[in-house]
Amino acid sequence: MHLELLTIGDELLLGFTVDTNGAWLARELAAHGIMVTRRTSVSDDAAEIAAAVEAALARTGAVITTGGLGPTSDDLTKPAIAKLFGRAMHEDARVVESLHQRWTSLGRRGEIPRSNLQQALIPDGAEILANGHGTAPGIWLEDDRGRWAAMLPGVPREMRGMFADALLPRILRHVTNTQTVVRSHTVRTTGIAESALSDRIRALPAFDLEGLSLAYLPGWEGVDLRLTARRLDAAEADARLARVAASLRAAAGKHVYGEGSEDLAGAVLADLRTAGKRIAVAESCTGGLLGARLTAIPGASDVMLGGIIAYHNDVKQHALGVRAETLQAHGAVSEEAAREMAAGVRRALGAEVGVAITGIAGPDGGTPEKPVGTVCIAADDAGIVESFRAIMIGDRQEIRQRSAQSALSLVRRLLRREA
Amino acid sequence: MHLELLTIGDELLLGFTVDTNGAWLARELAAHGIMVTRRTSVSDDAAEIAAAVEAALARTGAVITTGGLGPTSDDLTKPAIAKLFGRAMHEDARVVESLHQRWTSLGRRGEIPRSNLQQALIPDGAEILANGHGTAPGIWLEDDRGRWAAMLPGVPREMRGMFADALLPRILRHVTNTQTVVRSHTVRTTGIAESALSDRIRALPAFDLEGLSLAYLPGWEGVDLRLTARRLDAAEADARLARVAASLRAAAGKHVYGEGSEDLAGAVLADLRTAGKRIAVAESCTGGLLGARLTAIPGASDVMLGGIIAYHNDVKQHALGVRAETLQAHGAVSEEAAREMAAGVRRALGAEVGVAITGIAGPDGGTPEKPVGTVCIAADDAGIVESFRAIMIGDRQEIRQRSAQSALSLVRRLLRREA
Repeated sequence: MHLELLTIGDELLLGFTVDTNGAWLARELAAHGIMVTRRTSVSDDAAEIAAAVEAALARTGAVITTGGLGPTSDDLTKPAIAKLFGRAMHEDARVVESLHQRWTSLGRRGEIPRSNLQQALIPDGAEILANGHGTAPGIWLEDDRGRWAAMLPGVPREMRGMFADALLPRILRHVTNTQTVVRSHTVRTTGIAESALSDRIRALPAFDLEGLSLAYLPGWEGVDLRLTARRLDAAEADARLARVAASLRAAAGKHVYGEGSEDLAGAVLADLRTAGKRIAVAESCTGGLLGARLTAIPGASDVMLGGIIAYHNDVKQHALGVRAETLQAHGAVSEEAAREMAAGVRRALGAEVGVAITGIAGPDGGTPEKPVGTVCIAADDAGIVESFRAIMIGDRQEIRQRSAQSALSLVRRLLRREA
Repeated sequence: MHLELLTIGDELLLGFTVDTNGAWLARELAAHGIMVTRRTSVSDDAAEIAAAVEAALARTGAVITTGGLGPTSDDLTKPAIAKLFGRAMHEDARVVESLHQRWTSLGRRGEIPRSNLQQALIPDGAEILANGHGTAPGIWLEDDRGRWAAMLPGVPREMRGMFADALLPRILRHVTNTQTVVRSHTVRTTGIAESALSDRIRALPAFDLEGLSLAYLPGWEGVDLRLTARRLDAAEADARLARVAASLRAAAGKHVYGEGSEDLAGAVLADLRTAGKRIAVAESCTGGLLGARLTAIPGASDVMLGGIIAYHNDVKQHALGVRAETLQAHGAVSEEAAREMAAGVRRALGAEVGVAITGIAGPDGGTPEKPVGTVCIAADDAGIVESFRAIMIGDRQEIRQRSAQSALSLVRRLLRREA
């Protein structure tokens, strides 16, 4: 089953809006065996919309549009496509009724504005796709040759809800050959380079991708390994993904921290709970980013006590107890300072585990011995201390993000005694 | 001047990649008076690429493609478009030379892999667009009727550099009618609702949009007011944008914190420098996010001392000196606790200004009196204290972001004595 996507809006052609709707729809459709063969964006212009839909129907016989349905938009999509299908428009009594209900439930009084009622105009012979998150109904329009256009709103929350609740079931009823799907599975690693990962995977005895494709996706969080299964039925795809993912996990070993979109901070919190330990953070160049990562996870409060942001050296000395001699002999960006910071925050907050980051995030402040990106990280688990010094690549924000991620990784390895 | 964009890649049609290249190019082109009339994405398929380019040339006579040029890609774009233009390919000696130079400068030895040298294959009669950030050269191909296709790489950093350095100047040489442009200007506000802003703007005496369009863009940072000028020459557009923006600033008053993409954290640091004061943060539910915001700005260290992340109540008492009676009588999420936290962190770190956030970010922990989203914020400038309690909307992450933004806004107003 093939179809095309058409996203509608001047904002897309002026570049004010990034088209996240198209990517989301493409991913959801692929996961159900429906391949998007082309994506097009046009402006809020009836002739452009009609021409793009007509061409898409000629190529694939099926098109999903987003945008141009709401009360504040120019609402061009419905009449343009209705005309293309040779249909007149009528006011739908059920839609009028639901608009009235929503108007009242929001505590509004008086008449519904004319612009709102325009949403009740529906092409003759159309099916309505219910909108559980807004007022504009979606439309399914089909001709006598079985070619169809589905119109969704442009607001992502409304679009996603309507797709899942109404459009996807409608499409799956319409087609029969969705036996083969595109599914993917991601194994997340950190603290190991793409090339080293690749060497390890190639060195696996009898490694077989079983026809899946493998993509290496490096970023500040680490390297994600994404497996994709295509042209398989769902059960076979899932079985192969599970088997090959297990091989990848074996190859990457201690560098694996999660699957799919799992976050390393969540994995660290889980390890702390398992160990019955609480953590405190000491941050210089990251300035709170590591604390923010840990506390972004709901329920962090049982094992995350808090921390000290020691941006200025005075704070490192007075609040964390870093010794003046350490700062003088090794500098604030040194493994020695990081180790004293980790011990200091553990003591100051009464935590079992302390973790510290000190570094030069740039763009200024680098020296020949300690260039921008130099970061020292230490973790202290009840007096067992591990630390390292590294040079993080990227701009200021990326250096800070990589530093926080590396600190989380060090804590995880220390807790597991894999450091 | 009109043109179309074609972004190429299976990843776009599977939804694994969001097309940020298309949005970026559209915005840059519009700012120079060149309108994108359609955007299309197709897969890595020579026939699809050729069909899409042919249709775009028929409509507008000009198309920019991104993707399918790199050494690891299937490199389908160049041959597909060369064939469409009726051109053969040849190996370009200058590109081979620059590939060798880059190979050597990266410290690599031996022969360049064949896949790399493939990048030196250039359609006959093409102009090369230099790549300052990678190896794949861009291509400008033009037929005898003046219709052209420009091919850029898909890697955003390379694409952006090549567009600015080589393609945009080439396009501006090619066309003459770029007198009218699309320009926009954004005035950033926080701490005031969209509807209140709209009322204030409408209440301005003799307010005139001068033909510009005005969009209200609400988000967790506040409400951005974006003005857009279309179909004007550059000088007239800039003059009108400046005049109308001044009116918007007058209407929004103290709620304005910046222009364009300026960050409120940067504005607060500038105010602190002006006042000759240093700041320290005390964070509970935001867990470091406020510190991370302030330290994300390069050069923050002269006025940002650091802070205390007091996620657990013990830390609030022991590190910040919040009194047990305060916690007992009012709870940890109270203006009273926030005021003691702000005073406490100021004292603990020796700062002139302290700011504190305590709240319930959810999804759990809400009560009828203090539902999820309840946040108390206080700022203390050498003993002059302002505080408030509010209910932030959104999910956990949005509640935390809104809280940090509101805290920055409170500090700014307190420093300016506008609180």
